[in-house]
Amino acid sequence: MPRYRLTVEYDGTPYVGFQRQRNGYAVQEAIERAIGKFTQEDVTLHVAGRTDTGVHALGQVCHVDLARDWGAIRVMDATNAHLLDANERVAVIDVEKMDETFHARFSATTRHYLYRIINRHAPIPLERERAWWVKKPLDVEAMQDAAWVLIGTHDFTTFRAAQCQSKSPVKTLDEVSFSRSGELVEVRLSARSFLHNQVRSIVGTLKLVGEGRWTKEDVSAALNARVHQRCGALAPSHGLYLTRVGYDHAFTPLDTSQPIRRA
Amino acid sequence: MPRYRLTVEYDGTPYVGFQRQRNGYAVQEAIERAIGKFTQEDVTLHVAGRTDTGVHALGQVCHVDLARDWGAIRVMDATNAHLLDANERVAVIDVEKMDETFHARFSATTRHYLYRIINRHAPIPLERERAWWVKKPLDVEAMQDAAWVLIGTHDFTTFRAAQCQSKSPVKTLDEVSFSRSGELVEVRLSARSFLHNQVRSIVGTLKLVGEGRWTKEDVSAALNARVHQRCGALAPSHGLYLTRVGYDHAFTPLDTSQPIRRA
Repeated sequence: MPRYRLTVEYDGTPYVGFQRQRNGYAVQEAIERAIGKFTQEDVTLHVAGRTDTGVHALGQVCHVDLARDWGAIRVMDATNAHLLDANERVAVIDVEKMDETFHARFSATTRHYLYRIINRHAPIPLERERAWWVKKPLDVEAMQDAAWVLIGTHDFTTFRAAQCQSKSPVKTLDEVSFSRSGELVEVRLSARSFLHNQVRSIVGTLKLVGEGRWTKEDVSAALNARVHQRCGALAPSHGLYLTRVGYDHAFTPLDTSQPIRRA
Repeated sequence: MPRYRLTVEYDGTPYVGFQRQRNGYAVQEAIERAIGKFTQEDVTLHVAGRTDTGVHALGQVCHVDLARDWGAIRVMDATNAHLLDANERVAVIDVEKMDETFHARFSATTRHYLYRIINRHAPIPLERERAWWVKKPLDVEAMQDAAWVLIGTHDFTTFRAAQCQSKSPVKTLDEVSFSRSGELVEVRLSARSFLHNQVRSIVGTLKLVGEGRWTKEDVSAALNARVHQRCGALAPSHGLYLTRVGYDHAFTPLDTSQPIRRA
């Protein structure tokens, strides 16, 4: 059975997250239905990052095994055609045929997230579901300085949701970097993997530093307390984007003679 | 009666355009209602650019006369509070007190528009209501070259909607400039004033050049034909943004000792 790796972009607003849930409609179901329309198969997607309700993706990765060898371009175009037909807010932006040792979740070595904040006095009608509106001026340098407390290997119990299923609260945070361009503040976070709500807890906590309500030492004390109640309020889901998933170079696409048309 | 100049941002998606219409709810009504909530007055806004259904604004300008001198900051904050309460997709991003010779529409000397195109093979879920999805690769240099046919003073009858109320079809187009950054193509257009649908007709026509279906000479022939049926299909409204309205330096705000908090 040929295995296809799909890179996916979505607006998380109308979905209960990527993974199938009892309480609503998931991105996974939207894509599985679209693939089912042209393959006439019941397919199951495996995904790199199980994003929450309302979280967006610019480069989510999943894989699927199909009975027939459709070719990467056809998988992409047919899936997108059925996603558009169903008025879904999901698009497949790349497809590669992979060998069966590739697994979207277990082969992933890095996950990259972007958190977008619009920092201005007036409300943000054009970005309402695409960024977090923070009214008080943020000291981005102080936020960056405090972020160094969190970078590296730590017990992140403070920054972990109660329902987190990870075996260990110890994770290695590789990057938390801030940049400001006018009213837009972007935070980029990378790690091999994240705990449930870790990114939103970190951004919510560092926002308190940016507003001058917390110091770097408060962040350090919260981390060391290893108690979830000590972290800042969760940053809202609609500012968060899964931008990219990294894999070992050992996983190279098959059929590279047939490149996907990219813009 | 103190006169206030309001700079306004909005997501045009849920509105029938800026100006009050019989067939639906307009941005004008949303703002007038919000101002009425705290002033207890029936106010009437005057606007610089009467944007169509679905067109967005980053810097629309309007003015309003109020019975009482509230001060610019209070006008801004109270209007925004009531707009948020009513779940409107409109925000006031700046307010200045002006003398009575200032008129948002008649004093305006330049209007600046941005048209956003996402040019890629895959659909654009995150930008669906914020840009025009053009699948075929666009030759942006050819579009820029053909745009020179339109820059300057011309009879723009070809690029004018049937319902246009302008006295003359002769307008001076000061700028049509293209820039590309990855999949995003931005077109910036400036003029003292535009005919109804002129921007969308121009972008729709130049897109044909970008796709290789029209030449610069075809654009020239269409312009010279002075027949509306000769222009390309209208570019969709959801890619268009009114970004800025320019005024003579003679119109300077009163009360400059009390600056608005900007991010």
